[in-house]
Amino acid sequence: MHTQVFVDDPVKIGQNFAGKHIISIRQFDPQSLEILFHKTSTIKRCLQNGEQGEALAGKVITLLFFEPSSRTFSSFSAAIKRLGGQTIEYQNPMQTSSAIKGETLEDTVRVFEGYSDGIVMRHFEEGAPARAAKALSRIPIMNAGDGSGEHPTQALLDMFTLYEKFGRLDHLKGVIAGDLLYGRTVHSLLKGLSFYPGNTFYLLSPKELRLPRELFEEYTKARVTLVEIEKETDIPTDCQVWYWTRVQKERLADPSTYEVLKNRFIVTKKLLKEKGNADMIIMHPLPRVGEIDPAIDTDPRAYYLTHEVPNGMYVRMALLSLVFGK
Amino acid sequence: MHTQVFVDDPVKIGQNFAGKHIISIRQFDPQSLEILFHKTSTIKRCLQNGEQGEALAGKVITLLFFEPSSRTFSSFSAAIKRLGGQTIEYQNPMQTSSAIKGETLEDTVRVFEGYSDGIVMRHFEEGAPARAAKALSRIPIMNAGDGSGEHPTQALLDMFTLYEKFGRLDHLKGVIAGDLLYGRTVHSLLKGLSFYPGNTFYLLSPKELRLPRELFEEYTKARVTLVEIEKETDIPTDCQVWYWTRVQKERLADPSTYEVLKNRFIVTKKLLKEKGNADMIIMHPLPRVGEIDPAIDTDPRAYYLTHEVPNGMYVRMALLSLVFGK
Amino acid sequence: MHTQVFVDDPVKIGQNFAGKHIISIRQFDPQSLEILFHKTSTIKRCLQNGEQGEALAGKVITLLFFEPSSRTFSSFSAAIKRLGGQTIEYQNPMQTSSAIKGETLEDTVRVFEGYSDGIVMRHFEEGAPARAAKALSRIPIMNAGDGSGEHPTQALLDMFTLYEKFGRLDHLKGVIAGDLLYGRTVHSLLKGLSFYPGNTFYLLSPKELRLPRELFEEYTKARVTLVEIEKETDIPTDCQVWYWTRVQKERLADPSTYEVLKNRFIVTKKLLKEKGNADMIIMHPLPRVGEIDPAIDTDPRAYYLTHEVPNGMYVRMALLSLVFGK
Repeated sequence: MHTQVFVDDPVKIGQNFAGKHIISIRQFDPQSLEILFHKTSTIKRCLQNGEQGEALAGKVITLLFFEPSSRTFSSFSAAIKRLGGQTIEYQNPMQTSSAIKGETLEDTVRVFEGYSDGIVMRHFEEGAPARAAKALSRIPIMNAGDGSGEHPTQALLDMFTLYEKFGRLDHLKGVIAGDLLYGRTVHSLLKGLSFYPGNTFYLLSPKELRLPRELFEEYTKARVTLVEIEKETDIPTDCQVWYWTRVQKERLADPSTYEVLKNRFIVTKKLLKEKGNADMIIMHPLPRVGEIDPAIDTDPRAYYLTHEVPNGMYVRMALLSLVFGK
Repeated sequence: MHTQVFVDDPVKIGQNFAGKHIISIRQFDPQSLEILFHKTSTIKRCLQNGEQGEALAGKVITLLFFEPSSRTFSSFSAAIKRLGGQTIEYQNPMQTSSAIKGETLEDTVRVFEGYSDGIVMRHFEEGAPARAAKALSRIPIMNAGDGSGEHPTQALLDMFTLYEKFGRLDHLKGVIAGDLLYGRTVHSLLKGLSFYPGNTFYLLSPKELRLPRELFEEYTKARVTLVEIEKETDIPTDCQVWYWTRVQKERLADPSTYEVLKNRFIVTKKLLKEKGNADMIIMHPLPRVGEIDPAIDTDPRAYYLTHEVPNGMYVRMALLSLVFGK
Repeated sequence: MHTQVFVDDPVKIGQNFAGKHIISIRQFDPQSLEILFHKTSTIKRCLQNGEQGEALAGKVITLLFFEPSSRTFSSFSAAIKRLGGQTIEYQNPMQTSSAIKGETLEDTVRVFEGYSDGIVMRHFEEGAPARAAKALSRIPIMNAGDGSGEHPTQALLDMFTLYEKFGRLDHLKGVIAGDLLYGRTVHSLLKGLSFYPGNTFYLLSPKELRLPRELFEEYTKARVTLVEIEKETDIPTDCQVWYWTRVQKERLADPSTYEVLKNRFIVTKKLLKEKGNADMIIMHPLPRVGEIDPAIDTDPRAYYLTHEVPNGMYVRMALLSLVFGK
């Protein structure tokens, strides 16, 4: 397998995923997304019909997670195994591995390069997967979330979920609520949707957690219309999607702020009745800690547990298959 | 696979295990146990002849362990893999997963429902697996021990070990010693043996760790004769089984009590000579910390390491195969 | 599979690896090493040609690691899986398993004997794997590092790397630098090289971390010429190998000593220019924390990341295959 070294200007994927580092949603475009989502739909259909994947048979992929994660870790682990692959699993290596002996990130990933056919990395530092990519010469790395940087596979599963429901990724209207400052899933999602024309998003967040100005300007300069709103009553009633997020206690410098900011905006039956519509869907990257009333869970529009979670595995299967597969 | 939602009155298994939550030994009866033990014997024979299982080929099962465990965790992990299945493994998720971000148990298990074909759960809270079962709609869950509640697969392996040795589960006579108050393995075992007529057990424990009154009455009302004794000299010499247990330091409110209570009753060569007989067996759910003198280990009647441990894997293979298998 | 019980005088391997405990490099000799390295070369060639191993198909091997490790753990895990085997993985069982409930090492390994076909053990106590071997009756155990005792598979990968490069293990000349007191990899390597005639090693270490006298005498009485040197200028320019090691903070009684001792001797471009030669190789058991300047990494003589790491997996595959395979 030939790997292209990742540089600061990330390599575009275009039509060819094989052997490429997947660091940022910025590497994708409508063409590569079409290939990925077509593959995802095929894999989903096959799996639901009980057919097993073999794309990673004989492959060993390292899951190198420097930060707690349950759904991303498990989703990747299940995805690899359902494709016939095997894993080397590392969680919290700061506690269990050579990292505590003072080894550099570069040395660590080069060691795993000696044992495995690919790396999936979660790290608490923004840019760590890109740094790791530069140290690798033989195998590709996939970013599974880097600090308050990016979380590309989350954006991909969100986009696939929208695509599967509405048949398009352009001319969508939605609300994005919660932590828009540190929320890397929001940043990656908005970037991804900026590849398509006609999208409009209402941004609902506490003032302290607004979308950073430079990102606001970047997405706007692309093709997304962004409208910052301050209260639930400003939500338009014709949205296709409500995308809610959690205020991430672990990223706030001052923990006391958390109690003030958390759950400022909550999806309730009442709000859904006042501002929702029949054809919309409700999304959340999970975990949630109160932002969506559990009474909503049985509503057919609640997509976070029933659609996003399994789609996360399917889209990762497709990506793994295209990047690491034979 | 169709799953029956688990309710407070647990679904009886009867002749059909497929897709059912396994929460309590109370779901079993002599008929279902006969099916299970027949399957266990077959699997054991096949494996010892070097034949591999395929019942879980293509399946991914989540091991979700909220509490330290080595033998139950490893036994399930080995059982799944020896049936051709794969695992997602979670130990101590309070330290490594979304649980620390404040996610509810219900959300956590629903997420794993999106990735896997079944869940095996150990939890420190009694009732957690039953709560989780109610949150699931598509896949079954198996209780691998819930606080001081139940540990059904331990009871099943104990019963299989007795069944394999004596060819029956009725009209047995035995001693059960140690922590009968918090010992969930004892509670599940006595419940299981209460399905059969003519069983008599002598209960040997410190006063502080006696069998709870309501359980004593429940088992007695069923078909088990229970006799509380206070010292080793009260042990009858014609028992089929001595079932010894550890005083569980981690469940005692007052740790100072532990030093007083631990190892009140110990199986020694001397005791075995005075009160044992040639055809009996010695059992222990393990780990032990002094309740059985290691000098006993090479005695052919010592079944805890040589028979119970491997039987634990075989009976779990049979159960996994019947519940999750094709 | 028949297992020979390991005793204080470890069982020699000779021509037959099957079912033997692998505790010490002392069990090997030139004949067994020739068999092992021939197997390693074959496996390496097959894997690089994309052929999959099947030697451990249907086998479950327990990785029981009582001490942090990343490369040894991952290397064994990958090796087992690339041979078609499965693993039960235990890291830091003091925190997650029955060990915290007070179980003895003997009971712990006997439990894993009930579930798996072999054990690979790392332990913080010297002699623990040998103790464990005595408790086992059915399956073999492999030492993956025991305190400041031995690390036989590290020595084997080091020797294979030398053998692959120079086509021989006799009449080699080299420097071994760093922590020669606690460095178990150094001890195992020197022992291994003492099986062959004509080897000469210059030992470069702080006075506080010199090779223990009894080992110095043992290797000298065998066939290794050892020369203690005190500074880089004493390095002869015609070495085949520079073997550098890390000062292990975690083994020093007094942590303040660490700051004084670490990085006393560093491989730099300057040193390599002054004392190196074109045909030599640079080795390190890793992790490194400054003993080798990263600027050296791209030098073709730098073998630690490019050759030793993958060879670690290949030699373990060969050993696992010979010991546990069909």
